[in-house]
Amino acid sequence: MFETCVENVRNTVPLVHNITNYVTVNDVANVLLACGGSPIMSDDREEVEEITSLCSGLNINIGTLNHRTIPSMILAGKRANQLGHPVVLDPVGAGASRLRTETALSLMGEIRFTAVRGNISEIKTLAMGSGSTKGVDADVADAVTEENLDRAAAFLREFAKNTGCIAAATGAIDLVTDGAACYVIRNGRPEMGQVTGTGCQLSAVTAAYIAANPDNALEAAAAAVCLMGLAGEIAFNRMQEGDGNASYRNRIIDAICHIDGKTLAEGAKYEVR
Amino acid sequence: MFETCVENVRNTVPLVHNITNYVTVNDVANVLLACGGSPIMSDDREEVEEITSLCSGLNINIGTLNHRTIPSMILAGKRANQLGHPVVLDPVGAGASRLRTETALSLMGEIRFTAVRGNISEIKTLAMGSGSTKGVDADVADAVTEENLDRAAAFLREFAKNTGCIAAATGAIDLVTDGAACYVIRNGRPEMGQVTGTGCQLSAVTAAYIAANPDNALEAAAAAVCLMGLAGEIAFNRMQEGDGNASYRNRIIDAICHIDGKTLAEGAKYEVR
Amino acid sequence: MFETCVENVRNTVPLVHNITNYVTVNDVANVLLACGGSPIMSDDREEVEEITSLCSGLNINIGTLNHRTIPSMILAGKRANQLGHPVVLDPVGAGASRLRTETALSLMGEIRFTAVRGNISEIKTLAMGSGSTKGVDADVADAVTEENLDRAAAFLREFAKNTGCIAAATGAIDLVTDGAACYVIRNGRPEMGQVTGTGCQLSAVTAAYIAANPDNALEAAAAAVCLMGLAGEIAFNRMQEGDGNASYRNRIIDAICHIDGKTLAEGAKYEVR
Repeated sequence: MFETCVENVRNTVPLVHNITNYVTVNDVANVLLACGGSPIMSDDREEVEEITSLCSGLNINIGTLNHRTIPSMILAGKRANQLGHPVVLDPVGAGASRLRTETALSLMGEIRFTAVRGNISEIKTLAMGSGSTKGVDADVADAVTEENLDRAAAFLREFAKNTGCIAAATGAIDLVTDGAACYVIRNGRPEMGQVTGTGCQLSAVTAAYIAANPDNALEAAAAAVCLMGLAGEIAFNRMQEGDGNASYRNRIIDAICHIDGKTLAEGAKYEVR
Repeated sequence: MFETCVENVRNTVPLVHNITNYVTVNDVANVLLACGGSPIMSDDREEVEEITSLCSGLNINIGTLNHRTIPSMILAGKRANQLGHPVVLDPVGAGASRLRTETALSLMGEIRFTAVRGNISEIKTLAMGSGSTKGVDADVADAVTEENLDRAAAFLREFAKNTGCIAAATGAIDLVTDGAACYVIRNGRPEMGQVTGTGCQLSAVTAAYIAANPDNALEAAAAAVCLMGLAGEIAFNRMQEGDGNASYRNRIIDAICHIDGKTLAEGAKYEVR
Repeated sequence: MFETCVENVRNTVPLVHNITNYVTVNDVANVLLACGGSPIMSDDREEVEEITSLCSGLNINIGTLNHRTIPSMILAGKRANQLGHPVVLDPVGAGASRLRTETALSLMGEIRFTAVRGNISEIKTLAMGSGSTKGVDADVADAVTEENLDRAAAFLREFAKNTGCIAAATGAIDLVTDGAACYVIRNGRPEMGQVTGTGCQLSAVTAAYIAANPDNALEAAAAAVCLMGLAGEIAFNRMQEGDGNASYRNRIIDAICHIDGKTLAEGAKYEVR
């Protein structure tokens, strides 16, 4: 069924509206094109409602949030809700500052998100209302491991149930749940953490995947997470001597261009708990 | 004569002031360097007039327009007009929101643009005052094809005549006209549409080309369009197995570094109607 | 001792807060990861003090300064000063507009910078209070050459002494001084000037290096300058036929990933005057 998810994106070319940070925005645009979607970036409050109306999904990322764009996020999110478009939240750095935590919580309060994609520390912050995020990376103490996997899955399920969102916590092991089934995903490479923005890219791809598979949102989100991880694996195998994180970045996006339904179905490493 | 256009850019290293979107801005800077120009980005209203005065051309791109930067665009454009510098408009997404359409029209009203470079839907929006742009890509119904080529050229000529701008509408077939002669250009590759920002890059290069060839603006604009398309062709031929849009992006800019006057003169595919 | 500087960065993974321009910000993030640090970007006045408190260094770059972010720079800088964190200033384009010159001077007045990293024209502007910067590149008349080296070093020493900052003026020959010893560095390649943002990248790396080597700031800054230049040399040797500035950009960051203490110690080309 991941196969169908991939093909639906390539066949319908979902246009995704991104209100996102200026650090990784170019990669976000290129990865959306690579996976078969189409990007538009727009963050002025005067136009975000119109722009999101043209799209089939919305991706809100607070990586470089500021007072000009926060109201735009709210406006766009509410409009997307009215129109029944999927909306994804990437709560970058929630827990690292009061502004990030409060903005993420306020977005969660004002907008019905279809999915939240973050690292486990960011999602814990959303659950607890405060956190110990180390900058934009997960706190080591929070990391999902084989040892604490069941506990982490139970936590995430509870979060998903309470918020009504699909929750995707990505790291060494990725978890994606709607409160009932929980995908435990073991694609990816640790080296992806040395490339800025693979999380931001994944959030945008998740929006495209859900937009193209609206009746199958949980599976679409899990497919997106597997896709990103598999791309990291394929790209890693293509690394040449002397390549580093800049080339790896390009190779990951390149790999996504070439992943079709069959490749993902065969390469996805997951179990459903 | 394209040969001279290329060499004038490489010999004079035109400094181009860009007020542009944050999505593709890094590629815009690198492509300006690649073609032999030099970039400066500045968008605060307090400094744009001074900055543009140091430059020999101005490139205004509304891709992520907002209330802070729109007044800066007007100020910089008016100053560039006073100084006789070429000014290029890239009306990204005109037609996709009222803000974009109105801003583009207001810029056209307040500033004398030397050239407007966009997709055909964006330019139709400027001509009609409203449009049906699908996000930042051209509406399929608008696409210039061999079948509607004469009609499209006639439309663009009329637009150029009415506005006093060189009009460059790029897509599968590119048209560049000053209202009299119309270059019909068949360089480029469809895969360029999978790389974010090739249009933004072209607009910046067009500004550099006109800045370095002020007495030959139409030809310079056509040379820039051929250059970008030819770079897309050369880059495509250098693609290796497993490469995708991220590598293609780099290879296009790389190709521009190596195109000299002779290469462009030989590789340009155009007719003048 | 450069060897220790490199290893301290890789062992302590300094988190660097960047208030920087949107042109080169993605490369800045990836180069920080490449050298062994970790980046966070944040520029809203409501959160910069908290964010910088989480970090071990601050990098302020005025490349696309604007009225929203200038107060954030001041707030973050003052907090970093209170906490004893190193703060680096990259006065991009100081001398090119009154806003840039005045902002750079005002930052110098309000914040104690550990290091200032710029081209020689920008640093002359800070010293004189006005300048003749050609956009974001150094004025040719200012360039440090073998002929004027002693004079340039004397000027920079004086600047460092007067401001209490380490001064790093980079170009064909790089100078790094704390007012007493002056490192004269001959790493690097002229082709690095064709890649946008190598200066911005270096400033961020300098912040990471000083943060990880707080008791050895001058040497750490010199090591960072050698590192960047050496990466430019290694990357240049890896260039393949048809590669241009886009690939060179990636290869430079890639090279930084692979430079360990021994590689830098062996590859650094400098004398102390």
